[in-house]
Amino acid sequence: MDRTFDRSGLEVLSTEECWRFLESHHIGRLAVSIAGEPEVFPINYLVDDHTIVYLTSEGTKLAATLLGTAVALEIDSVDPMFHTGWSVVVRAHAEEIDHLDDLMAVQELPLRPWGPGDKRRYVRLVPTEVSGRRIVSPADGVVAG
Amino acid sequence: MDRTFDRSGLEVLSTEECWRFLESHHIGRLAVSIAGEPEVFPINYLVDDHTIVYLTSEGTKLAATLLGTAVALEIDSVDPMFHTGWSVVVRAHAEEIDHLDDLMAVQELPLRPWGPGDKRRYVRLVPTEVSGRRIVSPADGVVAG
Repeated sequence: MDRTFDRSGLEVLSTEECWRFLESHHIGRLAVSIAGEPEVFPINYLVDDHTIVYLTSEGTKLAATLLGTAVALEIDSVDPMFHTGWSVVVRAHAEEIDHLDDLMAVQELPLRPWGPGDKRRYVRLVPTEVSGRRIVSPADGVVAG
Repeated sequence: MDRTFDRSGLEVLSTEECWRFLESHHIGRLAVSIAGEPEVFPINYLVDDHTIVYLTSEGTKLAATLLGTAVALEIDSVDPMFHTGWSVVVRAHAEEIDHLDDLMAVQELPLRPWGPGDKRRYVRLVPTEVSGRRIVSPADGVVAG
């Protein structure tokens, strides 16, 4: 299969490859801008019908401030020894899941709360753009995904 | 040693613990706001005298837009099975390293370019805040750092 490279020389992943990586991983880092300053923190997510679902604590300022705003979820797997790997970024809008039907459906997902605290809210990230790159080694090798 | 917990019940890492994690890892995710929208991408970094140094390509829009602005670097190690781990976030300002003495010094660091491209710029992240949390399992266990 032909490979596509961007202007920086990184291999461009197809949308299908990006979703395969998203579905086979469950830890990502969510970046959000709050008053123009970036925040970034790890989340435990699941893919649900081409959206990303995760649980957050009611108490966090992040839960309150990120709803409705543009966020970016990044997942990757990087080999520091061989300088190879891949990275997928999902640009999305965050919505709280608060409709009863939807809430009952996501509660069936194998998503467990992390850490302490008991008031949980489900957040759904609705993608606006999904993109990914494979890092090609300077030694000309391309790591398999 | 007494442990400190934040309002969400996460264990607060000391600044010394955060720097130990930063020094023993070399892959992080850098978040930056561009026109109010978050961008996030993996970087390969080294700690140099309580700052973070990494290499970027001259061509990327990120190299140009992040200089002088507030960024956030996140590193973590999370165990999806046991829902434990830790996360460290460095809030910082990005500066290009362009003074000859400084450039010669950082070129001695064991930092290699990733991926293709040959025009490289060194960026130094000067921390304004370093913080970290250890995720405590709901089962009451605390993972060792």
